[in-house]
Amino acid sequence: MSRSGEKSFIEWICHSLPPQPHSIDHGPGDDTAIFHSNAELPSLITTDLLMDGVHFHLDQTHARRVGYKAMAVNLSDIAAMGGTPSLCVVSIALPCTNGRALGEELMGGLMDLAREFEVGIAGGDTNSWNGPLVVNITLLGQASRKGPLLRSTAKPGDLLLVTGKLGGSLGGRHLDFKPRVRESRLLHDHYNLHAMIDVSDGLSTDLWHLLNASSCGACLKQDCIPIHDSVYEIQDARTPLEHALYDGEDFELLFTADPAEADRILQDQPLDIPITLIGQMTSEKEAQLMAPDGQTHSLKPQGWEHRLQ
Amino acid sequence: MSRSGEKSFIEWICHSLPPQPHSIDHGPGDDTAIFHSNAELPSLITTDLLMDGVHFHLDQTHARRVGYKAMAVNLSDIAAMGGTPSLCVVSIALPCTNGRALGEELMGGLMDLAREFEVGIAGGDTNSWNGPLVVNITLLGQASRKGPLLRSTAKPGDLLLVTGKLGGSLGGRHLDFKPRVRESRLLHDHYNLHAMIDVSDGLSTDLWHLLNASSCGACLKQDCIPIHDSVYEIQDARTPLEHALYDGEDFELLFTADPAEADRILQDQPLDIPITLIGQMTSEKEAQLMAPDGQTHSLKPQGWEHRLQ
Repeated sequence: MSRSGEKSFIEWICHSLPPQPHSIDHGPGDDTAIFHSNAELPSLITTDLLMDGVHFHLDQTHARRVGYKAMAVNLSDIAAMGGTPSLCVVSIALPCTNGRALGEELMGGLMDLAREFEVGIAGGDTNSWNGPLVVNITLLGQASRKGPLLRSTAKPGDLLLVTGKLGGSLGGRHLDFKPRVRESRLLHDHYNLHAMIDVSDGLSTDLWHLLNASSCGACLKQDCIPIHDSVYEIQDARTPLEHALYDGEDFELLFTADPAEADRILQDQPLDIPITLIGQMTSEKEAQLMAPDGQTHSLKPQGWEHRLQ
Repeated sequence: MSRSGEKSFIEWICHSLPPQPHSIDHGPGDDTAIFHSNAELPSLITTDLLMDGVHFHLDQTHARRVGYKAMAVNLSDIAAMGGTPSLCVVSIALPCTNGRALGEELMGGLMDLAREFEVGIAGGDTNSWNGPLVVNITLLGQASRKGPLLRSTAKPGDLLLVTGKLGGSLGGRHLDFKPRVRESRLLHDHYNLHAMIDVSDGLSTDLWHLLNASSCGACLKQDCIPIHDSVYEIQDARTPLEHALYDGEDFELLFTADPAEADRILQDQPLDIPITLIGQMTSEKEAQLMAPDGQTHSLKPQGWEHRLQ
């Protein structure tokens, strides 16, 4: 893409933007964007860089799904704090060959989700190069009036709950998943949750993130882990349980509440997706997996090995 | 870099961070960072993606200078709005070979500037891959009480001023330049400026950005353009004036004020660097360059050709 091509692409983006939220006073077109925040609520910021060959494979994936995923992973981070997304900036490095078409597809997928979750696209940076497609989104959001839901505030005795089903996401769901923004807000608004994280690196790894942050341990019940249907179609050396524990990119919510509150949530089942009790927090800093026969095994963080270089 | 290598690198970053500003309530370590804004002042947001082979050449440049530049170009954008930088998030894609060492150097250069300008590093995303070094910074800031300085508010009759000297930056200065954050704040605080932009794409191109945004024209005086000493060392087909007009990556401030105010600024010379009168805004939407003999030529936006793919 030539310099004039970049300019014309930016003009295309500006004409294609979804309706901008009122918080954006001045979108793309100056040295920075200008916005205003609700100072009564804490602000949230997260950023994710996705690269061709690592987080997606452009030879197997439509760029629209890449754009969708780039926005979705950031939305999932805001969801994991019980927050509401507000606006983002988008940086793209487009390959020289077919860059404009790829760019439009990528932005299309990204804008689909921006529209759905009322996220403003305040600005960005577009480039082209003799390299693979790279996209970075930085997303801002606001915590709820109850404050952000941290990883570090789980307590021993809390029950561990998870939304949806786990495993097999890399078969394709990781490019299409629906970030749990509304689900998280509903749970946070109506119940007293103690801690939350999104399952991006795999249940075992993200559980360990929670345990390390909260200085707790946990015991998971092996036969309670909700396994996604897609896992049973995978033909490899891993068991379905191992896929659910280690695959990652599920982007479901893992959260804790005290037993009475967790029971209320499980009874209510307030979401369109199942909420499952998978275990309990303990005071000793270790993670155990209990088999149906009562035997326990140590659970190591093993998610996301596909990201290893 | 392995997954455990990435984890250890993130731990290194967290231990090496400069003092965080009070606006950051919760830095790296959760799904998002948490901060609070001064709601009385408009917030600013900018993002820049730098790629090896396009914005720098790692085979000729120490990664520390790349990190410095990645932060400096964002700081320059905040400066161009007359704002104060506050916090950033940093995304990095490190090449597999020597990734950890490159990452530490990059972060070192970036943190030097963060420390100097009291910018918090609220979070980020680190990755490694079989690709070139890529770094993206998203920087937040706040406008001054006088509001942000836009590109779109120059008026016909305004005088056009520029800080410092132009041209020859690609010989090395583009990796070491000092972003004009303090200079911009001082000018904005003490004088009534109409419009401002930073000279990143080259004087001719950034002048056109200003003209298009403000629906004005301009006439530059050829013999008033301040030419950087380094230009005279360049042996190529371009004249020194052409280097000053078209090279780009100067990261100086181009701004306008009404004639009386501009005269006051020129008289005061309130900065450690020179402020030079280079021309005047006109009502007809064209840019002209006036030679010493009074002849005028049309000035086209030709900066940044080195970015062309």
